[in-house]
Amino acid sequence: MCELLGMSANVPTDICFSFTGLMQRGGNTGPHRDGWGITFYEGKGFRTFKDPNPSCQSKIAELVQNYPIKSRAVISHIRQANRGGVNLENTHPFTRELWGRYWTFAHNGQLTDYQELSLGRFRPVGQTDSELAFCWLMTQLEQRYPEPPQDMMGMFRFLAECCDTLKEKGVFNMLLSDGEYVMTYCTNHLYWITRRAPFGKASLIDEDVTINFQEETTPNDVVSVVATQPLTDNEAWHRMKPSEYGLFHFGELIDGNADQLVDAPFAAMKVASQAPSGSLD
Amino acid sequence: MCELLGMSANVPTDICFSFTGLMQRGGNTGPHRDGWGITFYEGKGFRTFKDPNPSCQSKIAELVQNYPIKSRAVISHIRQANRGGVNLENTHPFTRELWGRYWTFAHNGQLTDYQELSLGRFRPVGQTDSELAFCWLMTQLEQRYPEPPQDMMGMFRFLAECCDTLKEKGVFNMLLSDGEYVMTYCTNHLYWITRRAPFGKASLIDEDVTINFQEETTPNDVVSVVATQPLTDNEAWHRMKPSEYGLFHFGELIDGNADQLVDAPFAAMKVASQAPSGSLD
Repeated sequence: MCELLGMSANVPTDICFSFTGLMQRGGNTGPHRDGWGITFYEGKGFRTFKDPNPSCQSKIAELVQNYPIKSRAVISHIRQANRGGVNLENTHPFTRELWGRYWTFAHNGQLTDYQELSLGRFRPVGQTDSELAFCWLMTQLEQRYPEPPQDMMGMFRFLAECCDTLKEKGVFNMLLSDGEYVMTYCTNHLYWITRRAPFGKASLIDEDVTINFQEETTPNDVVSVVATQPLTDNEAWHRMKPSEYGLFHFGELIDGNADQLVDAPFAAMKVASQAPSGSLD
Repeated sequence: MCELLGMSANVPTDICFSFTGLMQRGGNTGPHRDGWGITFYEGKGFRTFKDPNPSCQSKIAELVQNYPIKSRAVISHIRQANRGGVNLENTHPFTRELWGRYWTFAHNGQLTDYQELSLGRFRPVGQTDSELAFCWLMTQLEQRYPEPPQDMMGMFRFLAECCDTLKEKGVFNMLLSDGEYVMTYCTNHLYWITRRAPFGKASLIDEDVTINFQEETTPNDVVSVVATQPLTDNEAWHRMKPSEYGLFHFGELIDGNADQLVDAPFAAMKVASQAPSGSLD
């Protein structure tokens, strides 16, 4: 499967540590050789770095690892292709503008019968099920809210209902951000952790790197990281449940439906088995 | 004023040489210290590198200069801010999706009364007159062509008429691309050159760099470069006239209205003088 990485923070924070771990899975400790991308929001603007080449060999990935870009919302993805060829237009994350905001999306999973999804003015450029699902979500959002909603939490809950529909078509783990909020939806593989004072040390699973967050942070920093698999081996990551939706705002998990869900690993396995193993995008 | 750089080629070509010259104008040989950006199309996909920091000091600009990304359509911009603060959301180029294609835009100039332009579903994220004008152009395009037009040349001629309207509001030199075509519109400062066999040597104005294109190309390569100021001092650049529109396709200038226009340097100067000198974005 592909891998997702997201970050939400209350102060501009660099993601070099987590990104370093993720990039190793792009052809080194992981099989995701079919491209990678990362989007950093800075204010209302964003920068996306992407490459259809394996991240473990990418000069651009090397720059991103060594050049700390500080952001309060980040979405990243490394790809193992299933739907759509290995090229730039099929490389996540994808971005569209709605209501004068940039929306960025990355997906892990594989959908069937996604061609039935009716699209409006948002149209995919590439051939992935992921980008088509994103365009469908944006269409639902604009049809429901022609103007920017006041109740942002209600808007994200509406999006979570749309994700419930997509989940019926296969595996749909996703990250979505408008630069202020980071929304997560889980079908089977999504973990999160919130780091805050007192900060400790963390060591990467995929590379022999340890970081002492106490040296990198101030006492008021709150940073949440979301990933399809835990990135560190000495911290307690929360596993999200099937159909679980989460909403992060400036580092804090501010909304979600975890309490309403029963832990259902078997259901999760069943959904996962709908797609060829090892080929989930 | 800011500076624009565009490229259209019949084979994937890197723009390192021209970009190296342009970047020097970002705070070194030129005063454009307020950010820079470059968009490379690869197939239907694109990569944008941008930075609100001066290009002559930018680590990312350094990567782009040394890492040859081959493209058939490129749009680049270095900024000297007038409308809108110095930040990422105000950094050109800007991109939007229409008809399942990514459209990328960069502007040199300054508009007045641009707030009167009525917008549809394309909305600016930042505060520049440039992004607002781009959103207005995209709105005009979608209203006129709800579906992708068959007659692309007619569509670009329609866009040129829209640019005539924008020109009435000030200085509007621009580059626009969908990844296949590169469209240019000139108010006062825009030059172009087409390089083809037999290729010769070229030397940059802004840095002591000479290139022998014969060593870099094959006999069938055709590459056109467009810029607000010539980048080399030993080649014959064509100066575009006020209200001149040009359309490049895979390296060749395939359409334009130059023959219908009188050369009007005084008119150009008059238009230029509408905006404070040295502050054209």
